[in-house]
Amino acid sequence: MAPRSVAVIGATERADASSSYVMRNLMAFGFSGAIIPVHPKAETVFGIPTIPSLDRLDAPADVAVIGIGAAHVLGALEDAGRAGVKAAVVLASGFAETDEEGKARQQALVEIARKYGMAICGPNCLGLFNLQNGAALYSSTLSPNLRKGALAILSHSGASAIALANTGRFGLSHIVSCGNSAATDLPDYLSYLADDEATRVIGLVVEAIRDPAAFTSAMQAAHAAEKQVIALRAGKSSKGAEAAAAHTGSLAAANEAYEAFFRRTGVIEAADMDGFVETAALCLSLKARPTRRGVAIVGVSGGGVAHVSDIAEQVGIDLPEFSKQTIARLQALLPSFATPQNPVDTTGVVFADGAIYRSVLDILAQDPAVGLIVAAQDAPVGLDTAGAAEYTGIAEAVAAYAKDATVPVAFISNLSSGHHPAVRERLAGVPVLNGTRAALNAVRRVLDATGATITNASAIEPAGENDPWAERLATAKKLTEREGKQWLAENGLRVTRERLAVTAQESIAAAGAIGFPVVLKIESPDILHKTEVGGVRLGIASAAEAAEAFTAIMRSAHDHAPDANLHGVVVQEMTGRGVEALVGLVRHEPFGLGIVVGVGGVLVELVKDAAFDLLPVDRDAAEALIDRTRLAALLKGYRGAPPADREALIETIVALSNFAGRYGDLIEAVDLNPVVVFEKGACVLDALVISKGA
Amino acid sequence: MAPRSVAVIGATERADASSSYVMRNLMAFGFSGAIIPVHPKAETVFGIPTIPSLDRLDAPADVAVIGIGAAHVLGALEDAGRAGVKAAVVLASGFAETDEEGKARQQALVEIARKYGMAICGPNCLGLFNLQNGAALYSSTLSPNLRKGALAILSHSGASAIALANTGRFGLSHIVSCGNSAATDLPDYLSYLADDEATRVIGLVVEAIRDPAAFTSAMQAAHAAEKQVIALRAGKSSKGAEAAAAHTGSLAAANEAYEAFFRRTGVIEAADMDGFVETAALCLSLKARPTRRGVAIVGVSGGGVAHVSDIAEQVGIDLPEFSKQTIARLQALLPSFATPQNPVDTTGVVFADGAIYRSVLDILAQDPAVGLIVAAQDAPVGLDTAGAAEYTGIAEAVAAYAKDATVPVAFISNLSSGHHPAVRERLAGVPVLNGTRAALNAVRRVLDATGATITNASAIEPAGENDPWAERLATAKKLTEREGKQWLAENGLRVTRERLAVTAQESIAAAGAIGFPVVLKIESPDILHKTEVGGVRLGIASAAEAAEAFTAIMRSAHDHAPDANLHGVVVQEMTGRGVEALVGLVRHEPFGLGIVVGVGGVLVELVKDAAFDLLPVDRDAAEALIDRTRLAALLKGYRGAPPADREALIETIVALSNFAGRYGDLIEAVDLNPVVVFEKGACVLDALVISKGA
Repeated sequence: MAPRSVAVIGATERADASSSYVMRNLMAFGFSGAIIPVHPKAETVFGIPTIPSLDRLDAPADVAVIGIGAAHVLGALEDAGRAGVKAAVVLASGFAETDEEGKARQQALVEIARKYGMAICGPNCLGLFNLQNGAALYSSTLSPNLRKGALAILSHSGASAIALANTGRFGLSHIVSCGNSAATDLPDYLSYLADDEATRVIGLVVEAIRDPAAFTSAMQAAHAAEKQVIALRAGKSSKGAEAAAAHTGSLAAANEAYEAFFRRTGVIEAADMDGFVETAALCLSLKARPTRRGVAIVGVSGGGVAHVSDIAEQVGIDLPEFSKQTIARLQALLPSFATPQNPVDTTGVVFADGAIYRSVLDILAQDPAVGLIVAAQDAPVGLDTAGAAEYTGIAEAVAAYAKDATVPVAFISNLSSGHHPAVRERLAGVPVLNGTRAALNAVRRVLDATGATITNASAIEPAGENDPWAERLATAKKLTEREGKQWLAENGLRVTRERLAVTAQESIAAAGAIGFPVVLKIESPDILHKTEVGGVRLGIASAAEAAEAFTAIMRSAHDHAPDANLHGVVVQEMTGRGVEALVGLVRHEPFGLGIVVGVGGVLVELVKDAAFDLLPVDRDAAEALIDRTRLAALLKGYRGAPPADREALIETIVALSNFAGRYGDLIEAVDLNPVVVFEKGACVLDALVISKGA
Repeated sequence: MAPRSVAVIGATERADASSSYVMRNLMAFGFSGAIIPVHPKAETVFGIPTIPSLDRLDAPADVAVIGIGAAHVLGALEDAGRAGVKAAVVLASGFAETDEEGKARQQALVEIARKYGMAICGPNCLGLFNLQNGAALYSSTLSPNLRKGALAILSHSGASAIALANTGRFGLSHIVSCGNSAATDLPDYLSYLADDEATRVIGLVVEAIRDPAAFTSAMQAAHAAEKQVIALRAGKSSKGAEAAAAHTGSLAAANEAYEAFFRRTGVIEAADMDGFVETAALCLSLKARPTRRGVAIVGVSGGGVAHVSDIAEQVGIDLPEFSKQTIARLQALLPSFATPQNPVDTTGVVFADGAIYRSVLDILAQDPAVGLIVAAQDAPVGLDTAGAAEYTGIAEAVAAYAKDATVPVAFISNLSSGHHPAVRERLAGVPVLNGTRAALNAVRRVLDATGATITNASAIEPAGENDPWAERLATAKKLTEREGKQWLAENGLRVTRERLAVTAQESIAAAGAIGFPVVLKIESPDILHKTEVGGVRLGIASAAEAAEAFTAIMRSAHDHAPDANLHGVVVQEMTGRGVEALVGLVRHEPFGLGIVVGVGGVLVELVKDAAFDLLPVDRDAAEALIDRTRLAALLKGYRGAPPADREALIETIVALSNFAGRYGDLIEAVDLNPVVVFEKGACVLDALVISKGA
């Protein structure tokens, strides 16, 4: 990443060769170290003396750029490894992105990296560029307009790296196009950049997270160093995933897993390319981090602030009411036809007197509910200089305020083409954002990420291999309802009281012990949908009914599923009514198990209401899950029903998370539906456990 | 709008006076007609001879610009009216946007307009600018960079008009800042612009639609002239509505009414300012209108087209599979590691050979599923000239294709800062759009609007005043369930069979006539929630039960609501089970009654599932309403239930729409919940009718 010497394998002056780009970029950007072209015959390349092979150097080069075709890459890497080179950039395509041969070639590359302890950027990449020391190990045109700054761009996609590096909106510390990232991936670069003094904000373009644990560690390092990380992920849609060759399993599931992962690791996820640009611009220019979520909006026209407020509400920004004191002070300052509320409409008086605008900002900064001020003012680029001059007073007022503001201001243009250059140049040091929606989305996401803490892995000890349940799961594809509930009960979840009966007589005894009314259900490892085989009877109120139901269930199950192994009938406590929730575990690789919470029972498909989070889920996370679903309203008491025991549901969710911490390696999925939440307590009525191994 | 002479009342050379801006703008933009400053004493203003008053002219001026304070406006308008002037622009604020005095002043202005048949732009506006003849009746700085073109901007908000006029993205025919629009509003301008030869696209910034019928007529004229109309509406959120002073009743309701109204009148609604700009750019530059909804995406990188496809899916664009022939032709053309599917990843080969890019476009244009091609290519503005030159081959290929394309292409930049000027200049005649989300939203909305037809008003004859129901509604605040159903039944809706019983004996007879089992419900105009007063009994299966239930209901209702007027008990058919829908009428002024359809019964609040449309609703509109809700899935048969009679629900919706056409003026709201949809047929189980008058 910061080499003192670069060996270029396959160096040539042929204009379209990737190694030629690298040579020219190194020279053009004034690389401060040694440039060593490697060529078997030529004496010089671009006037720089060559060596015939890497082993001719007294000390190994810090990095070797492999600028030759895929077929020759492995040999060149071996040479480099033997010569003691510890880092390489492999530019060629022809690896895992192509065919079986390419996949094998990439696997061999990974093995060479391992053998020599070599960091490898690529293959199938543009390479990397350290703007601080001019190490432009980069095989595409680099604009001389690129300027040094605090943003590092780290991208799986070469095209996106080019686009984001050349917006002209920010200075850069590094550009890394890491391509297939076969041996060295985002967590490695991220860890390096966390320690890099020139870098304050890191922007990722992500096709896949391959090692969540390593990524989480790298994010902890970034946060410890007070660096913000922004991510744009491609391949969220079916067509997009195909194009990015990132398709695995359910997309909706993958998307919710990525969202949860980014949320838990404190990554600010951008919705699109513009969102990435505005979020980066905001993070780079914010001096003070906001300490409150409330946003105040200021503008010079009612229609204008109305539009900004509409979009603010759509993206989920909180626009608090001002205090009485703030309103009184604004009223004293502004004309009677101005609006001293949030959003503030100053009216056009501020054009004639910028000091009024400045005073508005000072007043808002003192309001206890305001954590950030959005000053929205278009000054369109199509204006002539005279027209643009009308806006400079406002721009200067904002810049003067921003200089030592404790409550940060963001100056936004509704038009994504931004402000007129004459206005823009008065805004040095001010976060200037373009496009109402992208700008406000950036504000929202930066506010969300402020104070986010990275959730540590579960402290729960996993079960050992000798655990009887581990043995059971090693052979079973899924557990019966009764087994599942027994296991959950041992792990602190309340389940229905129940007993297995293998004769009608036993069902009477069981019902007597549990207490009427009871429910009878078929017990069979081979029957998934009990109702459909006539395997469930509710409200059994007497011994006679119990005996009759036992016989009827066994007969019906046998008739419907003649090959099923029938273990008997479970006699089960019939609980009272309550709110029916679904609580479950699902596996989303590579992130492992996550938890799903939502409205359960017969409504589950109709209401389509579920929230997802990765594990572990503590009390606060369980509260957040419930609040993201309609359960929150149901638990308060729906259509005259009494309020249900929210606390008991929280405990159930946390208990299931702990259970997953202990047994997660054995489990593919768990489906508790319904969990009935009573006025007091909650109870698992049905449970399906699917094992991972079998 | 196209005056040959302009009188400026209060003309002055004082720089900050609004009339001074008007004088200078008229001179600067070379107004082709006569400029007549009106001043009681000065001999000339800006060197132009004045007249002391309007009545000194031989022929009245075409328009008077009233550039004096609010207090003097009415007098000046009276003078203008008496002098035969038929149009005025009133710039001053101090009217309905301020206080009671201002409201009275505006009312007086409207009366003068009516008295003299005078069109008035404003008050509280910037005025209007006809770029064709230089009539710049405009009281703010106008940039000399403004160029003539085919977009007319028509805005309630002055600030938004300035921003949208000065993007540099399009040439303009007219700018109209119409402020309070007291006497002359959007429909008037829209009708004029529909006939204006210079105008092809009309962009509206709307705070409120005040006269839907007039607006609809104007839209019909615009569509007849093949002009597209785009609208941006401010005040959709609570804070935004306060700021725009547009708050009336429920915002969610107002928003859905506006959406329905725009959809039905063929207005393309933009989500935000950027959306407006990109939609206008697309409409102005599309030569051929797309004839199919399918979109093909092309790019040069997998990651890049993945991102574009993700956003395309998010905004609801349809990305069809290509035909086998298309795929084969792309395969033959492109390298093996390219993607010949939708989205097409050409790979970087097109940089070296633009002809390949052109061939890809030609192949896609021949695919039967493709109606529009999105070519996504960043060429960021921060590049140097050499870097930008790499993209000119692609730009030239797109421009050559676009020249006589039958399947239109849109060339988009993921970055809203757009393409490098060196690339941009190769794209003459190509729709070039900036920012993935804004660009694709524009594409989606233009595709939606293609082929939209404006729904005509209902052909149904309203009921006369002598209709007995009109008399009933004139005195009743609401109808009882029984009355409501009787009225609906007379209008072709199937309701439960039922009879009123005033004694226990009558209830037995009624039940016998209807057939057991029956439902008994209290009948009282004073009881809204029957269940809460013990006023409902279900599943009455015998004469004895009916008698007992009658007595119990009457007693309970009396106990709970001692002052209620009890008419007796309704004995009602007890229907079978089915899908429970809600169908209702609600009033959203100024649009009148609309229809609501969604999941009904006890789920109504939980599922929160409703679609809204304005009246009249025909079969197709009823289908669309159902498909926008979860009813669509429920009707197919949910959790093993048999499919329900979708056709019967459609008929119910259309019948309710017809009912509203006949009696809409009498009704504030109708709530049919549930309408039960059986395997065969549908039936209104409960009905609440609230009258408008009483």
